[in-house]
Amino acid sequence: MSDVFFRKLAVFGVGLIGGSFALALKRAGVVQQVVGVGRSAANLARAVELQAIDEAAVDSASALAGADLVLVAVPVQQTRQVLQQIAGYLEPGAAVTDGGSTKRDVVAAAAAALGAKLKQFVPAHPIAGAELSGVQAASADLYRGRTVVITPIPQAAPDIRARVEQAWHACGARLVEMTPQHHDAVLAAVSHLPHALAFALVDMIAGRTDAAELFSFAGAGFRDFTRIASSSPEMWRDICLANRDLLLAEVSDYRAQLARIEEYLQRADGAALERMFETARAARNAWLRTAKS
Amino acid sequence: MSDVFFRKLAVFGVGLIGGSFALALKRAGVVQQVVGVGRSAANLARAVELQAIDEAAVDSASALAGADLVLVAVPVQQTRQVLQQIAGYLEPGAAVTDGGSTKRDVVAAAAAALGAKLKQFVPAHPIAGAELSGVQAASADLYRGRTVVITPIPQAAPDIRARVEQAWHACGARLVEMTPQHHDAVLAAVSHLPHALAFALVDMIAGRTDAAELFSFAGAGFRDFTRIASSSPEMWRDICLANRDLLLAEVSDYRAQLARIEEYLQRADGAALERMFETARAARNAWLRTAKS
Repeated sequence: MSDVFFRKLAVFGVGLIGGSFALALKRAGVVQQVVGVGRSAANLARAVELQAIDEAAVDSASALAGADLVLVAVPVQQTRQVLQQIAGYLEPGAAVTDGGSTKRDVVAAAAAALGAKLKQFVPAHPIAGAELSGVQAASADLYRGRTVVITPIPQAAPDIRARVEQAWHACGARLVEMTPQHHDAVLAAVSHLPHALAFALVDMIAGRTDAAELFSFAGAGFRDFTRIASSSPEMWRDICLANRDLLLAEVSDYRAQLARIEEYLQRADGAALERMFETARAARNAWLRTAKS
Repeated sequence: MSDVFFRKLAVFGVGLIGGSFALALKRAGVVQQVVGVGRSAANLARAVELQAIDEAAVDSASALAGADLVLVAVPVQQTRQVLQQIAGYLEPGAAVTDGGSTKRDVVAAAAAALGAKLKQFVPAHPIAGAELSGVQAASADLYRGRTVVITPIPQAAPDIRARVEQAWHACGARLVEMTPQHHDAVLAAVSHLPHALAFALVDMIAGRTDAAELFSFAGAGFRDFTRIASSSPEMWRDICLANRDLLLAEVSDYRAQLARIEEYLQRADGAALERMFETARAARNAWLRTAKS
């Protein structure tokens, strides 16, 4: 790890994920220069102020000139378009990774967009979200102790893959390898489904005529349950669409759970309710004991 | 408020709610003596160690001798039985309140159990839960700045009601009055439903053959979404049963929300998903700006 160093990092999409990656590599002292590319000049100016990036690049060509590391950190539906922009200017030997929350679609987008340069791409998903979005929420600590799932493609050049892994390690993350399909199935259950459920609950309450009163009696339990419903709607729209087959399967399973609860309530089966609640509590508490955070 | 003082508080059920009430009144300096009654001698001994109570009473008669304030803080299905125990020994002029999370059933239990002493009872629900349970989690600060809903019954003696309100005020709470029916409807939406949803999700994941792997990729979003699934199964069984008609209506509405999401996913309607997510985020963020905590 002592020889980890990047001359120039180009970040496409300087939000929470991109900004935190840049800040982490800077703090680790493993990157000389960081440039940012994005849709909003105001956001890029804020990223410069926050020292997440050194400068905003005027176009992809100048961003990629001399860049040996590239992070794509945009809502996943934009991945293909951004990779197409990148493809023509990417230097030989430059390593490309991403921060997308779904991986089958990202791999398909890369295959379509990168051509012979596909071997320079190593897909990654840092499991380190926050309900806050935007570079103003970025932190050099976001990835510290967190898991980053790598879903390498067969064509990847070994040296490129090593460079990408070094970069995420330098952010403080631990790496786990999976296939894109397996990644998307696991995340559908433990991330995409809970996000959909939280959005659905708040939307339901908000649509009631007595919404103001209902919210006024919502307590700390509601606040934490719905924290992820303050996440970026655009980002989560893209995740839900990209993973919709596996998410649909999870929503269907979850509706069956609700049908069970309804059945228990209808027949006033306290023992069955208590068993379900006790199973949940025991499993969650066991998980907390083993989880890093 | 300067003349608020209680000679003796008797707490039936010395857990999170009962222990915190005792600790708060002690710290406010408005109670001279606190005795506890409960099913578990070990728990009562711990409550004495933690100075939540001064001593464990050997029976209801001795607990209530000289008591001018009584708190019933047991899982709601036990309320009737505890009030029956209390009825024979309650001193004239003693004020009784409770901490139950449902109120129609508590009012019915009181009417059945207290007879002519019903006028000494003022039902209350402090909206200040925590996923932790037991007296070891009790805190003198639990009710500070929190809402306590009072659902007074027509028979209540005005001086008794004033005493109960003084006690909750001394804990640092703000009081709101509602009918039991209205209370139960509001809490079904913003508390009982989210608890059922969180238990249902963790139970679902825990039942999978790959549960260990799934939990290992669950992040901070999952942790907060499911925090309330670490709540007491017994307490939540009772709440769900006591409020089952209104909770069933909420689960049914929520299943309709999930059907909407399934429909959006099936037709890949990103605009509709984004609208739902944006409505939820905007409503939650507006609520956070107005909420006290």
